[in-house]
Amino acid sequence: MHKYCLHLMYDGTHYSGWQMQPNAPSIQQIIQETITALIRQEVSVVGSGRTDAGVHALNQVAHFTSLIPIEPERFFRSINGMLPYEIRVTKVFEVPLAFHAQKSAKSKEYTYRICLEPIVAPFERLYCLHVPFTIDIDLLKEAARQFLGTHDFSSFANSRHEGAAAKNPVRTLYRLDVAPWEYGICLEFEGDGFLYKMVRNIVGMLLQVASKKRPIEDIKAIFAAKDRRVAPMAAGARGLFLTKVNYEKLFQTL
Amino acid sequence: MHKYCLHLMYDGTHYSGWQMQPNAPSIQQIIQETITALIRQEVSVVGSGRTDAGVHALNQVAHFTSLIPIEPERFFRSINGMLPYEIRVTKVFEVPLAFHAQKSAKSKEYTYRICLEPIVAPFERLYCLHVPFTIDIDLLKEAARQFLGTHDFSSFANSRHEGAAAKNPVRTLYRLDVAPWEYGICLEFEGDGFLYKMVRNIVGMLLQVASKKRPIEDIKAIFAAKDRRVAPMAAGARGLFLTKVNYEKLFQTL
Repeated sequence: MHKYCLHLMYDGTHYSGWQMQPNAPSIQQIIQETITALIRQEVSVVGSGRTDAGVHALNQVAHFTSLIPIEPERFFRSINGMLPYEIRVTKVFEVPLAFHAQKSAKSKEYTYRICLEPIVAPFERLYCLHVPFTIDIDLLKEAARQFLGTHDFSSFANSRHEGAAAKNPVRTLYRLDVAPWEYGICLEFEGDGFLYKMVRNIVGMLLQVASKKRPIEDIKAIFAAKDRRVAPMAAGARGLFLTKVNYEKLFQTL
Repeated sequence: MHKYCLHLMYDGTHYSGWQMQPNAPSIQQIIQETITALIRQEVSVVGSGRTDAGVHALNQVAHFTSLIPIEPERFFRSINGMLPYEIRVTKVFEVPLAFHAQKSAKSKEYTYRICLEPIVAPFERLYCLHVPFTIDIDLLKEAARQFLGTHDFSSFANSRHEGAAAKNPVRTLYRLDVAPWEYGICLEFEGDGFLYKMVRNIVGMLLQVASKKRPIEDIKAIFAAKDRRVAPMAAGARGLFLTKVNYEKLFQTL
């Protein structure tokens, strides 16, 4: 038995998200079917976690096991020749059997891109949220700080009937930076885990505060309510990128 | 009578090019129909020149005349609200009636993007040529210098039965720089005019030389032959961007 780790980059625009589901093409399904065809073995591809419909990845991580050893360099060339250009394997390497793309993950990083110009360059139209109204960057940064640390994020999580995650809505956000981006700003998140639509719900609230549609004091009240209905709408999927998955010390050098 | 100048940015992927033609959506047609609907007057939109099917523009220039004055700021917002996101008006302003987007143009600039990495990022797949084999950058630069200056570019121009341009195949290339690009290099062209597919044919030849498939001496021989059939295939449309149109002194400050 051999276990392999894949690093993946994808444009999520035309996909139903990472997770396999009936009646819609998912990234996971395409990867799994391609590997199955390539190595002539039924494989299960396990990702570090889901990305929603329309969300992109600069660096998603997944694993699969194979009964026979594969030659990573050859596999890399072959799979990229077979996959649609919207999905690329950027790295492939063997890992210890103990590695698990989801369970060994220690933290994840996401970036949300916001275009602040009057118009969005056509080449970026699928990769950012357009915010053509004035926002207060200092207020945005101040609001962002209120999300840092360990909280019950129930008010910022859509329900997805998913069992474990829904049972424990407490997550820790290590970092929420406001960084410059060529056409505006990007919000950089790092946390030990993210509930369903959590990043996009936080971005939705940050923009309400930064555009003075809601007072900053509402953030505390919304956290306290533990009710998704009191928080504003999620920001669109197209601005969101999964940028990095960090693993336990044991697997850090992989 | 009032004349207006438009600066346009577009993703040419899904269009048949700038020029109107039967049975295929062109950028010119979409702009013209949108302005006609917006200002309720039949207008003719004249561009600085054609861009081929699949070619992009960071800065195409066009003009149109209107019987009634328009308010540029309002027009800018309205037209961008009506156009598909693949086409954006980046500037609109009144110009003297003597201005002509094509005839007043003094030179044009194009950029051709080449990705030299083993794989193309999904977000760039429609905006560059992938060259996954080794190329000699010094040789590329040396070959590029041979295209500078005034030449009969017949061997690097596809025929398009277009009259004036076909009659005089002499053009002057002022600049052909090899510049770094995030994922590889870009070739930056500036010339007094470009024949049909001239930039892409030159790129095709440069890549043949830089990858040592043809000796650099062939460039002189191909120029001398004045025959398109002796030169290699054109490089793909997706890597090409019209980046700037420069105008006569009189209109430089516009």
